[in-house]
Amino acid sequence: MNKVILLVKRPFGKPTPDDFKIIHEEIPIAKDGELLLKTKYVSVDPYLRGRMNDSKSYVPPFELNKAIQSGIIAEVVDSKHVEFKKGDFVSGHLDWKEYQISNGKGLQKVDENEAKLSAYLGVLGMTGLTAYLGLTEIGLPKKDETLVVSGAAGAVGTIVGQIGKLLGCKVVGITGSDEKVALLTSKFQFDHAINYKTTPDLKKAIKNACPDGVDIYFDNVGGDISDAVLANINKYSRLPVCGAISLYNDTQVDLGPRLQPIILTKSATMRGFIIGDFFEKFPAATKQLAIWLKDDKITFSETIVEGFDQIPQAFMDLFEGKNEGKMIVKI
Amino acid sequence: MNKVILLVKRPFGKPTPDDFKIIHEEIPIAKDGELLLKTKYVSVDPYLRGRMNDSKSYVPPFELNKAIQSGIIAEVVDSKHVEFKKGDFVSGHLDWKEYQISNGKGLQKVDENEAKLSAYLGVLGMTGLTAYLGLTEIGLPKKDETLVVSGAAGAVGTIVGQIGKLLGCKVVGITGSDEKVALLTSKFQFDHAINYKTTPDLKKAIKNACPDGVDIYFDNVGGDISDAVLANINKYSRLPVCGAISLYNDTQVDLGPRLQPIILTKSATMRGFIIGDFFEKFPAATKQLAIWLKDDKITFSETIVEGFDQIPQAFMDLFEGKNEGKMIVKI
Repeated sequence: MNKVILLVKRPFGKPTPDDFKIIHEEIPIAKDGELLLKTKYVSVDPYLRGRMNDSKSYVPPFELNKAIQSGIIAEVVDSKHVEFKKGDFVSGHLDWKEYQISNGKGLQKVDENEAKLSAYLGVLGMTGLTAYLGLTEIGLPKKDETLVVSGAAGAVGTIVGQIGKLLGCKVVGITGSDEKVALLTSKFQFDHAINYKTTPDLKKAIKNACPDGVDIYFDNVGGDISDAVLANINKYSRLPVCGAISLYNDTQVDLGPRLQPIILTKSATMRGFIIGDFFEKFPAATKQLAIWLKDDKITFSETIVEGFDQIPQAFMDLFEGKNEGKMIVKI
Repeated sequence: MNKVILLVKRPFGKPTPDDFKIIHEEIPIAKDGELLLKTKYVSVDPYLRGRMNDSKSYVPPFELNKAIQSGIIAEVVDSKHVEFKKGDFVSGHLDWKEYQISNGKGLQKVDENEAKLSAYLGVLGMTGLTAYLGLTEIGLPKKDETLVVSGAAGAVGTIVGQIGKLLGCKVVGITGSDEKVALLTSKFQFDHAINYKTTPDLKKAIKNACPDGVDIYFDNVGGDISDAVLANINKYSRLPVCGAISLYNDTQVDLGPRLQPIILTKSATMRGFIIGDFFEKFPAATKQLAIWLKDDKITFSETIVEGFDQIPQAFMDLFEGKNEGKMIVKI
């Protein structure tokens, strides 16, 4: 039998196990021009929370009582499609199903000999592209500038910081545990990291960590943390808004200090993006990331959870900061 | 005797007459390489409020018990400087004094035969440049896009709207009286204008006025009005932040809905600026504005108050919206 995970309720605030349901159905059979895929690795990402609402967002909402989708690495277990053969591995935006049929559209073949398979969901996939293109296209880093990254120990944050270092910036990360602080400054080469949960005056801590002010703020979280960073931005600073995980589960509009006065007095640029905005830059960016990875210039972390049934829990754990780097479910 | 207006107290909240003092001193005498200037027209502008605080802003604060400065058109009444002669008119950033000495630095000669003198404080001065460069460099208007302007009947707003029309946009203005609504849609050719003071649901009114959504929001005001516009922005919208007059007199940090979620989901760009950011574009911009003015493609409004002693009151009246277009004091 085949397992499928449905969205059965739209979460109100934080998602709960009741919002998901695992059902069983027959394993489908590939017809001419089709493939049968077996799911190997599933990416769970904060942005999926937005698609669980019934409101318009940058991508359409998930439908109730249908399978949820995310980035998945799958193995071709049967092929009636000329471009794929049994044993190939592919990456794509696929359903939360153990087995599924595809017509091949939107699938990319991935090579196990070039990098470990899960890397194609992370540093060589959307995560790496998001970090690289958000930082270079909006952050416009220059040598010796100061880059602050929030959600720094997350999948995107760890890569943003390392790319910032490669491009000559001073890099400061904000994260939520002392273990993550230690990882950022050791494994990921950040110059400094701050545990926002144990720092009484975050604004002052950022000021101390960034004596020359903040030139680029790569924002993964929004909320109070971002307020504290914005209080320290320099003239002509650039503020890529990549995520707002602190706000995704809000059930009412969150209030904060108005930003226009600081944006105005600093001639700052705040720009939101999703990775699709830079579609035409994907090939060059992927090439650069692969070179850095091969040369051991960037490393990455994964939190790997095992078992198909664990996908909803792994997703929910993102909002508790239980992941270090990319959260992946291995089937 | 010579009159001088000093800042004697830093305003707390709205400026009051007690914050200013008029003193009398001797009329100075020009030495070699100097000019004696007689003030003719004084520009009073919302941004001066920021300089009255003791906090760092984009320009240094005014010093207490010294003359305030702003854009001024003056007549050369005595010259011991080779480049200027008696009877010349000049524009510059000068003291609130009836008479003052200059060494000529930073002064531009202006020609009474090309345009009325006060226009060099408005459409052909900082006001026009702010409107033109903020709109074209940050707003990036494209034909048939929808442009919303707040503070629409102010000096910058009226010019932004007209340039928007010249560049093929649909233009909607937000202002604070029915008289100003009528002016915007008649004299200034806006497609639609909204009186925010009498509109119960501003968000909905903007939605009705902009059925295709808002592509560019030229923000002069900040606060609730901007919240209502931002609720209607399109994907890839551009939000030049030119002013935040609704917030200048705040005595505590103003709270509003957090902007990151909408900036993120719309891939929007919010960018603050002051006109000095575009210094190298001044000559081309001034040329374009002069052509449009000569060809009657843009018109402008002035609220002219008479009498040197009236400068502080004219400045205070800006925050009550008593001006239509550029507020100028004629001496």
